[in-house]
Amino acid sequence: MELSKRIQAMQESPIRKLVPLAEQAKKKGLSVIHMNIGQPDVKTPKAFKQAINAFDVDVIAYSFSQGEPALLMAIADYYQKSGIAFAPEDILVTNGGSEALIFAIYATCDAGDEILIPEPFYTNYNGFSKPANVQAVPITTKSEEAFCLPKKEEIESLITERTKAILFSNPGNPTGAVYTQEELMMLADIAKKHDLYLIADEVYREFVYDGLSFTSMASIPGVEDRVVIVDSISKRFSACGARIGSLASKNQVLIASVLKLCQARLCVPTLEQVGAIELYKLGLDYFQEVKEEYDWRRNIVYEGVNQIAGAMCKKPRGAFYVVVDLPVEDADDFARWMLADFSYEGATLMVAPAAGFYATKGLGANQIRLAYVLEEDQLRRGLKVLEEALKAYPARKA
Amino acid sequence: MELSKRIQAMQESPIRKLVPLAEQAKKKGLSVIHMNIGQPDVKTPKAFKQAINAFDVDVIAYSFSQGEPALLMAIADYYQKSGIAFAPEDILVTNGGSEALIFAIYATCDAGDEILIPEPFYTNYNGFSKPANVQAVPITTKSEEAFCLPKKEEIESLITERTKAILFSNPGNPTGAVYTQEELMMLADIAKKHDLYLIADEVYREFVYDGLSFTSMASIPGVEDRVVIVDSISKRFSACGARIGSLASKNQVLIASVLKLCQARLCVPTLEQVGAIELYKLGLDYFQEVKEEYDWRRNIVYEGVNQIAGAMCKKPRGAFYVVVDLPVEDADDFARWMLADFSYEGATLMVAPAAGFYATKGLGANQIRLAYVLEEDQLRRGLKVLEEALKAYPARKA
Repeated sequence: MELSKRIQAMQESPIRKLVPLAEQAKKKGLSVIHMNIGQPDVKTPKAFKQAINAFDVDVIAYSFSQGEPALLMAIADYYQKSGIAFAPEDILVTNGGSEALIFAIYATCDAGDEILIPEPFYTNYNGFSKPANVQAVPITTKSEEAFCLPKKEEIESLITERTKAILFSNPGNPTGAVYTQEELMMLADIAKKHDLYLIADEVYREFVYDGLSFTSMASIPGVEDRVVIVDSISKRFSACGARIGSLASKNQVLIASVLKLCQARLCVPTLEQVGAIELYKLGLDYFQEVKEEYDWRRNIVYEGVNQIAGAMCKKPRGAFYVVVDLPVEDADDFARWMLADFSYEGATLMVAPAAGFYATKGLGANQIRLAYVLEEDQLRRGLKVLEEALKAYPARKA
Repeated sequence: MELSKRIQAMQESPIRKLVPLAEQAKKKGLSVIHMNIGQPDVKTPKAFKQAINAFDVDVIAYSFSQGEPALLMAIADYYQKSGIAFAPEDILVTNGGSEALIFAIYATCDAGDEILIPEPFYTNYNGFSKPANVQAVPITTKSEEAFCLPKKEEIESLITERTKAILFSNPGNPTGAVYTQEELMMLADIAKKHDLYLIADEVYREFVYDGLSFTSMASIPGVEDRVVIVDSISKRFSACGARIGSLASKNQVLIASVLKLCQARLCVPTLEQVGAIELYKLGLDYFQEVKEEYDWRRNIVYEGVNQIAGAMCKKPRGAFYVVVDLPVEDADDFARWMLADFSYEGATLMVAPAAGFYATKGLGANQIRLAYVLEEDQLRRGLKVLEEALKAYPARKA
């Protein structure tokens, strides 16, 4: 009655495992400020639900395995407007960015193979590679260097004959780092030299600040057939619960192969595809307002964190997360303690302990990730709770 | 630039690979009668879309990884009414029955492990086990025996130390076989003796005919902790495009482990869960009318097939498929030829060649699967096309 070793080896989500403590805090009457998860409070554009409500058929039938043709067209149009040259036939619609990541891993790696991933990284990269028996090999990046990539030689030293791909999120979750064109060209050089795929999770593409212009991995010449772009409407249009993602590549053999995985699971839900078509038609100007709102929030969090004694973060350049160094030894214990034993003016704070974002044991023990997806007053209140909690924590009862 | 061996080893869907030929036939102005796929023409109950249309929120947010609590309750209620004792905490909502099957395989099998599956079986069992590096080992069942299970000794002779589970659909796709209580008790005995899991795909549970009463694997005593039930609203409520499935087990360690897989992909779409709640509230009387309709169609196809010279099928007892023996050597070639080169009174017929449902090479070469999910006149027209095609096929140009 043993379960498989691969499922036993999987960790519980380091974020979601704190949920019971948060539930208990709420039962005690506390307000729990959620800076732990990237669930934006920005409204989903009304076009999404309007299209779904207007969709009137007798039978909710299977969609196409590759996705609704009109959605593939709409995504291709969006890419063109973003300066990325994907045609509808280069794209497959997936169950969220999650399934696109799973498919990219299975298409490029066999059991026992390795994928290089800059750490700290989105925890679920582990959750997708472990069941596939693929080893996530971390490229360590550092808080004090704003999580930029290390030198080429350092990355190359991690490559073995089992290395099949480099996987990264850009802009970065949890780091907020945005890779420069030079960094991407370095990755391209490495991929060509060592015959690797480049799996770029660009779901935060629009969220870059400080006037930075975003460069997609798909725009770097010479590696078009090595690049797989993972995408999602979740953050882009604040539609996390729609679970519409996509996988895109100019490598037609790869697309035809991933289509076999798509066919096995038949299709993605029809209704959300109908809604997503309208979201992708919104055009790039939609993002300007949203971006300004996140930029504002980013500055509040960045300044707020650095005003707290002992807390430190570099200014994130993209996405809506920041990794914060805290003056504690065990941020996981601190996060649990805040939920279980601390409150300030009727509120407590939920954060994501950062150790779960590292593959290297011991790293990130004193770090947390904060998501700035809440309105200003909530963020300010959360930062105040953090400040007061850090004052009270050293004197806690063990 | 090699892709993974596991994705290269996957076959294209034997059903979906005929789609381009069907598209060409349609372009020629032919009407293509689809008896190839289990997409019912029965209307999705209006309650589904009404609930979704009425669901009014500003942000389409993440749902719970295990599923919406109200949906878990509604599914548990449905199970209780069906005489199956699952509580909400025994259930996880999945992206269709497909994801429930994937999760069941990953939870019970490591790379290199084996799963016994009565063949012919739903092709995608291969599509799910191959990427997992799990070997589908066929238990051959025979058309002339109405696809009942072979003797216990025959099944046991296939078990090795790598065998971890027996997976089966009941009622059977593509066979239409409904396992008796005795057959299920035999499987239970084997599972106990050889320490195996029993993964029962019961998505056609309500579709059993001839006054037969359906026995769920979950009702067999003594193996409660070995049984994993895969379920879906796709066929039950004619909502294939909703992609709402579930996995249920009394084994709480298994459920907690599969929850880790659920957490990695975050959640199932929110809107379809809202709709599915209302479907599960419809109650068992809903099925009576649908079942009578399918029973009627079954009789048309069963009688029609056996009136065609050289064609033969035993009467299926459940689901809405039948495997038909044809007087041809290569049913795949015959199916392609019908789409590419044959028509009768402006119509041609699309069927599923059955070889793709067998893991044993060579079996099923002369068989097709017909789905009786269309209205009577369409079915009669399809059978007529089949009859005329079988007359014309021997004289075709090679």
